[in-house]
Amino acid sequence: MKIALAQLNTTIGAFSENREKILEFARAASDAGAGIVVFPELSLCGYPPMDLLDHETFVDENEKSLRILQAECPPELAVVVGYVAHNRDLAGKSLRNMVAVVRGGKIIHRQAKTLLPTYDVFDETRYFEPANVRTVFELDGIRFGVAICEDIWWEAPVVAGTRYPVDPVQELLDLGASIILAPSASPFYAEKLAVRRDLISQIGRTSGVPVVYVNAVGGNDNLIFDGYSMVTDASGCLVHRAPGFSESLTYTELPASAETRTVAAIPTPEKYDEIRHALVLGIRDYLRKCGFSRVHLGLSGGIDSAIVTVLAVDAIGPENVKVFLLPSKYSSSGSVTDSERLVENLGIEAFTVPIGPVFDASLSALAPFLADGDVGLTEENIQARIRGGVLLMAYSNKTGSLLLTTGNKSELATGYCTLYGDMCGGLSVIGDLFKTEVYALAERINADREIIPRSIIDKPPSAELRPDQKDDDSLPPYPVLDEILRLYLLESKTGDEIIVAGFDEATVRDTLKLVGRAEHKRRQAAPVLKVSPRAFGTGRRMPIARAIYEA
Amino acid sequence: MKIALAQLNTTIGAFSENREKILEFARAASDAGAGIVVFPELSLCGYPPMDLLDHETFVDENEKSLRILQAECPPELAVVVGYVAHNRDLAGKSLRNMVAVVRGGKIIHRQAKTLLPTYDVFDETRYFEPANVRTVFELDGIRFGVAICEDIWWEAPVVAGTRYPVDPVQELLDLGASIILAPSASPFYAEKLAVRRDLISQIGRTSGVPVVYVNAVGGNDNLIFDGYSMVTDASGCLVHRAPGFSESLTYTELPASAETRTVAAIPTPEKYDEIRHALVLGIRDYLRKCGFSRVHLGLSGGIDSAIVTVLAVDAIGPENVKVFLLPSKYSSSGSVTDSERLVENLGIEAFTVPIGPVFDASLSALAPFLADGDVGLTEENIQARIRGGVLLMAYSNKTGSLLLTTGNKSELATGYCTLYGDMCGGLSVIGDLFKTEVYALAERINADREIIPRSIIDKPPSAELRPDQKDDDSLPPYPVLDEILRLYLLESKTGDEIIVAGFDEATVRDTLKLVGRAEHKRRQAAPVLKVSPRAFGTGRRMPIARAIYEA
Repeated sequence: MKIALAQLNTTIGAFSENREKILEFARAASDAGAGIVVFPELSLCGYPPMDLLDHETFVDENEKSLRILQAECPPELAVVVGYVAHNRDLAGKSLRNMVAVVRGGKIIHRQAKTLLPTYDVFDETRYFEPANVRTVFELDGIRFGVAICEDIWWEAPVVAGTRYPVDPVQELLDLGASIILAPSASPFYAEKLAVRRDLISQIGRTSGVPVVYVNAVGGNDNLIFDGYSMVTDASGCLVHRAPGFSESLTYTELPASAETRTVAAIPTPEKYDEIRHALVLGIRDYLRKCGFSRVHLGLSGGIDSAIVTVLAVDAIGPENVKVFLLPSKYSSSGSVTDSERLVENLGIEAFTVPIGPVFDASLSALAPFLADGDVGLTEENIQARIRGGVLLMAYSNKTGSLLLTTGNKSELATGYCTLYGDMCGGLSVIGDLFKTEVYALAERINADREIIPRSIIDKPPSAELRPDQKDDDSLPPYPVLDEILRLYLLESKTGDEIIVAGFDEATVRDTLKLVGRAEHKRRQAAPVLKVSPRAFGTGRRMPIARAIYEA
Repeated sequence: MKIALAQLNTTIGAFSENREKILEFARAASDAGAGIVVFPELSLCGYPPMDLLDHETFVDENEKSLRILQAECPPELAVVVGYVAHNRDLAGKSLRNMVAVVRGGKIIHRQAKTLLPTYDVFDETRYFEPANVRTVFELDGIRFGVAICEDIWWEAPVVAGTRYPVDPVQELLDLGASIILAPSASPFYAEKLAVRRDLISQIGRTSGVPVVYVNAVGGNDNLIFDGYSMVTDASGCLVHRAPGFSESLTYTELPASAETRTVAAIPTPEKYDEIRHALVLGIRDYLRKCGFSRVHLGLSGGIDSAIVTVLAVDAIGPENVKVFLLPSKYSSSGSVTDSERLVENLGIEAFTVPIGPVFDASLSALAPFLADGDVGLTEENIQARIRGGVLLMAYSNKTGSLLLTTGNKSELATGYCTLYGDMCGGLSVIGDLFKTEVYALAERINADREIIPRSIIDKPPSAELRPDQKDDDSLPPYPVLDEILRLYLLESKTGDEIIVAGFDEATVRDTLKLVGRAEHKRRQAAPVLKVSPRAFGTGRRMPIARAIYEA
């Protein structure tokens, strides 16, 4: 049977728009002779709907949308589509994360999601009751089982402290399913693709049953769905992979023929290429889905703002990206010329607005509280806030352009950033990349030609907020800092364990203290595009008021 | 038996400090001849620990703390104390929300929490596996059952879309429990006290079994635990209530004698008095637990900043509260004199910093982007950002004083506030009070003597960011707006239902659109002290990028 993988980019709450897309894909799949088309998880309403699920109208509109779809789908095609259903049982949460199979104007099968992720960015038990039964359906003599997203993750070695008591795929196989359909909405992080592939291959290897995995694509706030829908055959071989980071309608034939197996050597994409694609999609979709068409940002001469500019140009073209040079007396001449070269390389428009007069007026206004000639934290932050809060936000208000935030994860972790200053903006583009990863991404961007001037990459990092300032006056060198942060934030190592791993005790304790104390800043940070298994934001929820017991 | 209710104010992660307090209370209870002392939910680690539970050291420290407690508690006393336990089962989440009963150096009983709230501000299934068994323990011939917080809420008429399949209290009664102990951490909202009382009374009325309900007290970020521990007797009569909003160790005798019953006519406190107490505690504890001793804020001459000033003075005394008058050319002379009278009434120090020069310098810097003489949204926001972002935050950086945010819920809902401007600050004090509720609170504060000058209450609300500006130029009159918002946000009514209830269609649709479009501002807002059943922040999680389908 010819199976269509409809890798869709939906918008949350855009019921008619999502449905029209689904119909369009379904008609194309039908015209192409497919017997069944599979859409990602919750395609009718968009994912993740979050607390919109508390709105009765949201659930009603989504169920209405399913009825319209049911009436309008090509009758010969089986359409596997995700939506939110009421839970009709007497106990439990009032909704279910559901998939319907529509065919010939009827719903011929329904399957609710069993394993509801409630860790990291996921809150599914906040809304949904798990399926209490798994069943299969038959089409042209083939038995299909539907496993929704997390339902295939039972085999995963570590799912954040959870060991699921039920294996939905196992049950579907017990019922004789000979193809597993896995509609998903699995957010991107670097190198997750291999984890997903191993997971579905494993099903084939241990059961001899092929898996059709259809992932969502597109950005939604902090989450980026990377697509890469996949098919593994009866032996667990990858026989088909849809593109990453774009909508697509692709086809697979199951059972797989010998020829398709030879296609199996699909290369794994390079890590930083993937991150770049993800961030570009994350920017583009955030803008589009929020109704923005232009962005701007402050260009400091440093690597962070340079890389965000490149990504923004990738996302929406040079004509829609404006940059601001906002020099103060502490800005080096190198920073200005470096910025100018980047601007030239990218063909974008730049404005220069020296902040001196506003800075001086602010110092005068604050004179009763400041000591003469002081250039401490206060004076540094004033500069950052004039840049971000006053000037760049004014441009935003005046022109409807979205300000992008340029801070990295090392800064957000340690609080080496100014709230209402450089933290201003609607979207934090590289807030989930450590500084060392920002460098690696820069090298990859420059692989073919020097887009980011070499001198931006080579200069020692500095906020340039006081004379001769360097980041490593205040922080450990980034390779050390980032590895401590990585062990702590991503590997959940304790301070003691990090010290045992060979890091200086005082450095480790100080770093953990900084992380704990910067929680109030992160709570007010812009949404951070997630590209790691654990990003700041909805995936890491910490109290602000607490004892820093761990340092 | 004499039972002690230890209404404790813990700090998250402060293991020794919490344990020392527990020991101190336990010793006092023992000295007073109590047979058993009951502490609130998760007292050993503090509540809510959130993602600190992902840290192995956090769970280890908390278990170690229990062992120390076990060794040091007065041996004759039974100590009922909450902590985080590892789940030793092979499936499910790795932790349990547990209560241990310590006596004579042993743990004589353990009970895990069964009903794990996962709605509003609660995320308990993110961390915990529910109890799969309920048991009782015996002490001096009395059988006790332990029901942890949500475990007694099975009877509640509406628990946000959830109908629990298990009734833990029923099971404890089936096992012969003759007293139910209910260690809790139940966050405040206005008039919740009556809901709680009805809940525990209901247990007595239907089972003839008394309930000892011990609630946490104290502020933790956005949550305020109000205390008010209670005891109902075998007939469901309230026979004891601990104070609200402060730590206490109180005693009850069970079974209740005839005399104690006559104490039952404990009055229900007035709503706005309660809100005031709650906000004061919320401010005081946020400061203390974050290590601040002083606050400051901008005084606009309006009611919001006036009321926040009063609450701050209540919380930490006039000597620790500084206010700033930050007049511009749009400030009315009335605003200045009103502010000065408030300052005098409260005996606090005020600074005046005119923002004109910084504003003018900003307009000059931005001249290429602004049209001459424009006073639109951009120019309004610049003023707000100079005040909040530049000047007030500079004072914060210089002195270590915390800036309080003064916006109300009507503004946060509609986006009638400036991100990085008046939204700056570490804590949003009245962000969960609609404007009309702010007025009601002001009247209550003025009940005995005029603390807030009458003219502040009587003047028409204005942001004073352009000539002759009034809030109702941009928004519906507050009584109308607030009722629409209340129906939408708190009663979950749809737009259509609100229109049917008698509101103008265009006004309703426009308001819902404003709410939907302001999500990006709320995502970067300071933590809002929760005083309603549904506050902005962790209790309401909405996507930013989405279609505003509901308007």
